[in-house]
Amino acid sequence: MLLHQALKRAVHLFPDNTATIFNSQKQSYRELDARVQALACALHNLGIQRGERVAIYLLNCSQFFEVVYACFEIGAAVVPLNTRLAADELAFIINDADCVAFITDEALQAQAALFRSELHGINNYIAIGGAEGFADYETLIAKHIVDETTPPMDTEASEDELAGLFYTSGTTGLPKGVMLSHRNLWMNALHSFATRAPEPHSIFLHAAPMFHLATFPALINITLSGGTHAIMPKFDIKVLMETIERERVTSTVLVPTMINFLISHPEIGKYDLSRLRRITYGASPMPVELLKRAMKTFPGCEFIQGYGQTESSPLLTALLPEEHITDGPEHITRRLASCGRPVIGVEVEVVNGEGKRIKPGEVGEVIARGPNVMMGYWKRPEETETTLRGGWLHTGDMATIDEAGYIYLVDRKKDMIISGGENVYSTEVENVIYQHPAIREAAVIGVPDEKWGEAVKAILTIRPGASLTECELIEFCAAKLADYKVPKSVEIREGELPKSGTGKILKKELREPYWRGRTRQIN
Amino acid sequence: MLLHQALKRAVHLFPDNTATIFNSQKQSYRELDARVQALACALHNLGIQRGERVAIYLLNCSQFFEVVYACFEIGAAVVPLNTRLAADELAFIINDADCVAFITDEALQAQAALFRSELHGINNYIAIGGAEGFADYETLIAKHIVDETTPPMDTEASEDELAGLFYTSGTTGLPKGVMLSHRNLWMNALHSFATRAPEPHSIFLHAAPMFHLATFPALINITLSGGTHAIMPKFDIKVLMETIERERVTSTVLVPTMINFLISHPEIGKYDLSRLRRITYGASPMPVELLKRAMKTFPGCEFIQGYGQTESSPLLTALLPEEHITDGPEHITRRLASCGRPVIGVEVEVVNGEGKRIKPGEVGEVIARGPNVMMGYWKRPEETETTLRGGWLHTGDMATIDEAGYIYLVDRKKDMIISGGENVYSTEVENVIYQHPAIREAAVIGVPDEKWGEAVKAILTIRPGASLTECELIEFCAAKLADYKVPKSVEIREGELPKSGTGKILKKELREPYWRGRTRQIN
Repeated sequence: MLLHQALKRAVHLFPDNTATIFNSQKQSYRELDARVQALACALHNLGIQRGERVAIYLLNCSQFFEVVYACFEIGAAVVPLNTRLAADELAFIINDADCVAFITDEALQAQAALFRSELHGINNYIAIGGAEGFADYETLIAKHIVDETTPPMDTEASEDELAGLFYTSGTTGLPKGVMLSHRNLWMNALHSFATRAPEPHSIFLHAAPMFHLATFPALINITLSGGTHAIMPKFDIKVLMETIERERVTSTVLVPTMINFLISHPEIGKYDLSRLRRITYGASPMPVELLKRAMKTFPGCEFIQGYGQTESSPLLTALLPEEHITDGPEHITRRLASCGRPVIGVEVEVVNGEGKRIKPGEVGEVIARGPNVMMGYWKRPEETETTLRGGWLHTGDMATIDEAGYIYLVDRKKDMIISGGENVYSTEVENVIYQHPAIREAAVIGVPDEKWGEAVKAILTIRPGASLTECELIEFCAAKLADYKVPKSVEIREGELPKSGTGKILKKELREPYWRGRTRQIN
Repeated sequence: MLLHQALKRAVHLFPDNTATIFNSQKQSYRELDARVQALACALHNLGIQRGERVAIYLLNCSQFFEVVYACFEIGAAVVPLNTRLAADELAFIINDADCVAFITDEALQAQAALFRSELHGINNYIAIGGAEGFADYETLIAKHIVDETTPPMDTEASEDELAGLFYTSGTTGLPKGVMLSHRNLWMNALHSFATRAPEPHSIFLHAAPMFHLATFPALINITLSGGTHAIMPKFDIKVLMETIERERVTSTVLVPTMINFLISHPEIGKYDLSRLRRITYGASPMPVELLKRAMKTFPGCEFIQGYGQTESSPLLTALLPEEHITDGPEHITRRLASCGRPVIGVEVEVVNGEGKRIKPGEVGEVIARGPNVMMGYWKRPEETETTLRGGWLHTGDMATIDEAGYIYLVDRKKDMIISGGENVYSTEVENVIYQHPAIREAAVIGVPDEKWGEAVKAILTIRPGASLTECELIEFCAAKLADYKVPKSVEIREGELPKSGTGKILKKELREPYWRGRTRQIN
């Protein structure tokens, strides 16, 4: 199936359902589809060919949906850009992807002006809200609104053609474009339904940025089930709570940092969040204490953890609502710390350096195989070959596994600290730190150390009103961790730790000042 | 994904769940898998090659499951035989499929002896329970039971290789083998999950014969979710009720005839059927009155209608539990007479003779496209070409469609009656007849008529204790149907109407005596 079939289905079966809610404006699937078809005609008439790439530089908005589906409709591939990147990085990505069109909005035009002169190959600049030097988005749509008898456009594209390039930043080096085909994203949607289908008539909130694979798949899944996309332009805790209340949001995807901010917010009690029935979380490890607090805060809500990565469109494993057990024997409750088990449709293994399945207690790398695994990295045959060697996706995630097949991520391979010859998994240390009531955010990194090679360092922010000293935290950790895992130094910062577009703490950035001019060894 | 991945998943994630219950014997997935692996080794050592066909001539049993998965494991294709067929038909099918192995059981050995001498190309005869001239099934397994360290067998087969040949009888002519690939059946499983996933820990009863696509897919779906297969050797109403009670069955697939017999059974009240939470029905049209009675009989049970055919592995459309609405406006309640709407993953259209989508009120043929549509008919390139013309499966089912996209089957193309130049859809007339309280079973066929071309004839059985005359039924119909649709003659029979293996009334057989020596025109 091609991805525009998702919208075709919705407009055929659920034409009057609310498709999008954005800035309190609602569109039905019928209305939305008319605009998508018009935009598809417009893009086609502008000369955008099947297989060409369209750069999408937008905050979350209903037009994001329209652009994505219009591209699918004409067989063009989308290149959703991380709006938090710097001008140089954006120019690099757009040029690397050989994009032929660039679509932005009012909020980002000033930023776009900073790198526009660096772009090669863009034939069409389009802006929502219009601007000097940009075609006006609404004018394009208005010119191409078609009557009902016009036959729908359709491409002859195969499922194995490119649907999108999703750039990820490597540990080192330049961002890489993950090539996802129509089949990749379609199969991910089916795997996601098989894991836990959206409830009928769900109202899904796009709280995380749509350019990221945490939320992008919802553009397909929620549409397939005729649900509603409620859209927030960008993440803000108060707007999140207001939107959940006002639009009676029933489900959303949040990253752990967002959940942390949400449940710690002093005004959470002022909002009626009771319609929320499902929180799916993922994109970075979820500290168990945080998860338990979240479950207490939303007792009527089911929690699903999805683990995956851009390279797998993204879903690999899930921890289901009925597996979120807080009371009972330890071998059951400890599963809260796991990312669950492989979803239907994907083979997932944890293997040692020789590619053999590890035994419980050992640590290995998560590898995966399935129709959702990327076609490769755009124009990076060597990195593709390395990452997909032997027909398996090598995720770079280190994990253990228990007797029942639950997978416990211990760290990104690149975030693992080797201190005095011992492996220290940063997330294990973070999990302990998060048990301290004063902690708001914590990141554990390795810093160069003459004696130990790398030394464990914790960088923290604390809750308003709380207090904590370096010594107190080290003592707290020493009571719960082996010596070599206890942070040798602690830094308590004001404000927030630096984060990616999806709210993942950027350890790379935290490490950078310590490693400047040196090379960190990664296995 | 290859289909043996379903069992691999179950044994990895749910090793101690009960996999099969048969004759009150339970096997866990771990136990079942050990037998499957042993059988796979045995079949491999007997020389059965990847791509070769294995004839399965078994009543429902846990060994049916084992044989199917052992074949999948070594990349052999299964040919499940309809156990109700006559010796000649079976010999034809086994030879047509070029089977190299033949597996049967004690109950069917005598029948098998009738056609064994007709078979070419079978190198291996295997019997459960053993027999003269057959290798003994249990001995084969015992010889190959492997220890846990033996690496699992695996084939290099692609998803597009043949997983099974499922024979269907044509309107005229010889049975045709529907070629279903691993991908076809895998995608059907995912579509079925997207439609309504099995509940966790479901106990599914194989009441319909496993050789048929009504129940065969459950071998994959229920296994994927770690559920239990409760197995009845063959359909019997009392055994059905006993098994549901004894094994605490939670879900099953029944054909309308089975539901009719079940809810009409005088002793239904004696059994505790309260664990049953889901009845999926299909394989032949469901009269609305019967459906309503069934819903009353099982108020705690959700009903799902699945419509499809062997050629689509089989699911095309579904009527979901929340669409089974008996009270409300007519345009909603009439949906009970529909087979629902297209499932996620399959394109379904109803088109007229020119291949154009019909408007509500018109009648057209159901066509479908999707990854679940068969590879073709085995060794029948012309029939394949006709049935799959233009890349769409032509189902031979005539239907109308309403504004909301619900599809109402009106008849098989071949069962449509043309009387005085007017189309009469046999199921429409049957639906009216079923409203009469005396009716047990009804079939409406066209018989040759000098004046009308074809005349409408009803063939009936009536409920125990009820009485009905030909005139009464004609008057009853005349009050509810246009003149030309009212049966011109009525035949009331003793006993049961002739049925297929899945309980579908065999209209072909009912028509046969009237049409002997003549040719019936089919559009």
